[in-house]
Parts: sequence; C-alpha cells; structure tokens
Amino acid sequence: MEAVTGPWKQLLLNALESNSHLRHSSFFQLATVGLNGRPSNRTVVFRGLEENTDKIQIHTDYRTHKIEELRHCPYAEICWYFTDSWEQFRVNGKIDILDESNPDLNELQQREKSWYASSLKSRLLYLGPSPGLPCLSEQQDQEFLDHSTGPVGTFSLLVLDPDQVDYLNLKSNQRIKFTSGLSLNGEKCWTSQRINS
Amino acid sequence: MEAVTGPWKQLLLNALESNSHLRHSSFFQLATVGLNGRPSNRTVVFRGLEENTDKIQIHTDYRTHKIEELRHCPYAEICWYFTDSWEQFRVNGKIDILDESNPDLNELQQREKSWYASSLKSRLLYLGPSPGLPCLSEQQDQEFLDHSTGPVGTFSLLVLDPDQVDYLNLKSNQRIKFTSGLSLNGEKCWTSQRINS
Repeated sequence: MEAVTGPWKQLLLNALESNSHLRHSSFFQLATVGLNGRPSNRTVVFRGLEENTDKIQIHTDYRTHKIEELRHCPYAEICWYFTDSWEQFRVNGKIDILDESNPDLNELQQREKSWYASSLKSRLLYLGPSPGLPCLSEQQDQEFLDHSTGPVGTFSLLVLDPDQVDYLNLKSNQRIKFTSGLSLNGEKCWTSQRINS
Repeated sequence: MEAVTGPWKQLLLNALESNSHLRHSSFFQLATVGLNGRPSNRTVVFRGLEENTDKIQIHTDYRTHKIEELRHCPYAEICWYFTDSWEQFRVNGKIDILDESNPDLNELQQREKSWYASSLKSRLLYLGPSPGLPCLSEQQDQEFLDHSTGPVGTFSLLVLDPDQVDYLNLKSNQRIKFTSGLSLNGEKCWTSQRINS
C-alpha cells in the first residue's frame, strides 16, 4: 500500500495532528490558472484524503470560477501553512472534478459519501445564490433541504492527485522535495531529495 | 491621495491591526504561473505597502523560481486569510521586480530602503546557498555581512500593483469585489460591488 502513497503523507498527517487544536489548520490555499492566463488563489477546506491513497479531497460549488478554470487547466497547487508547527506543504497535481454528470458509479458513490460527511450548514450553502455573482436585494435566506436527499446538483467533489510535494519546516530549516514517477511495472513511485530552504 | 489607493486598503489595515497579535498574520500565499503553465503557490511575508499607495511589497531571493515565473508572466494573486478575524483578501495584480539591474534611481533607492528595513537574520539568507537546489553536504553555515553594505545582488523587492481585490468576511458573510479602472483623466479609480459569498 505504501508504494502508491507518498512518503510525505506521514509528514502531513503529523502536521494535521500537531496543529489540530487550531480550527484553521484544515484550511489551505488552492491556486489555479484563470481563463485569462493569470493565477487565481483562494482558501478552501481540507475534506480528507481519499481512502488508502494520498489524494486530497475538496468540496466546492459547481458555480464557482474554479470549476471553469479547472476544466480549462486541471492543474493546481495547494499551499498549506501550519501556523503552530511552522511547516509548509506545497502540493502540485491534477484535479478531477466529480459532479453529478460523472458516469463512473464508484465516483458517484464517493461524491455521495462526501455529501453526507459534511454538515447540514455546509450542505445548505449549495442551495444558496450563485457564489461570486452580484447580490440581489431580494434573496431567500434559507432553503429547505430534505435530510434524505442525496447531493444537490451544485455539489462537486474535487480530488487532487499529487505528483510533486515541496515540504518546508521553518523550525528545523529542513526542506524536502518529493517527486513522483512511474516504476517499471507502471506503478506510481516517489523519490525525495533534501533541497536548500 | 485616496483617489489612487483602493477603498479596500482600509479594510486591509483594519485586518492587520485586529490580527497583529498573531505572528503569522503577516504571511500570505502568493500564486504565480509556472513556466510549464501550471500554477505555483507559496507563503511569503508582507513587507508593507509602498508609501502613499496600495502597492504590496514582498522580499525575495533572485534565485527562486518565482522570479523566472514572474519574468514569464508578471501576474500574481495573493490569498491572505486572517485566522482571527476570519477575513480573506484575494489581491490580483501585476508584479514589478526591483533588482540591482534596475535603471530607475527611485526604484534602486526603494530597494535599498527595503534591505535596511529587514532584519540582519533575513539579510543573511541572501548570502546562503541557492534556494530550491539540492543540499550539498559541505556548505558554509554562515557568511559574513558588513552592516554598512547595501543590498546584495540576490536581494529583490517585488511590488504588486493590485487591479482587483475580492474581500470576504466569514463572520458577517459579506463579500465585496473591488475592481480598478481608469478615470477620464487617466487616473486609476476603483469601483466596488457586493457579491454572493
């Protein structure tokens, strides 16, 4: 199993553990490339790793700009700074968008699982007005959501498959670059190298 | 004076003030576009606003990837999340690189001022081994820096000139988009609009 997950995964799990008393430790910044070729950057919430992998899960509203940006250029870089342990993870990889139009049954189930794992308050946001569009004066404040209903159409699960991780520890001044490649039997494998911080 | 600085500047100054007890409140994430077209994202330190403007200053080593990335595509987006006040500023704009080859005397002086404003510890980093390159086993730990010496060749001042700011307050659930344009007399002017969060 460890062959397909990156050796940086344990460093990340340790950082999550040692910073878990801070609510914002599950927030990171996700950079994408905009349709105009300029970078975009926003804070998003870490929604866990896909089971038995090192793939990073994020929830988002299908109506946000990042969806059209990722359709245009599926690559992203996460910058995750842990404010208590002074560690930074820069995770670069390709993002898969799992929405309701996804034909893969397994992925549809994964999206449904993510939907039920999030709070009712989070789920209600997907019924609200379109994010990023001008506020209208007359807007319904709350929508009704049936608890038994599966994910609504606007709910999307983003899955980032890392292929490079740059780890920096500002306390020990250690920096390690993890790079993935393919082994002879076609499996993903990771190499690491200490680099200057 | 206020005509050339964005109306979001006061919101930013307020956030800096109300989060000033947190060391990491002066850190933000800077996204650029890599030479391969993929986004890059890293934590950098806020080094103040250029006097009487709303331009954001950052220090960096000339040998880092972000320099060659910015030479290729000068646009960047800052994502600045304030963990105590729950405010996010996404600042998009063009970056000017001020290095020793800069022919503008005013900009050379600005760079020199930034150099002397930073700590001796910070300044010593610019004499260290090249950031991002593999660690060599035999490396000098410390270099000697003459206090009276001006900025070393690797010291660069980055100046981001914002042209769009997306402000989000997660406590009040308020989101405002500030957009700059040119007035009839050719001066930069800002408009703002409340948008859905």
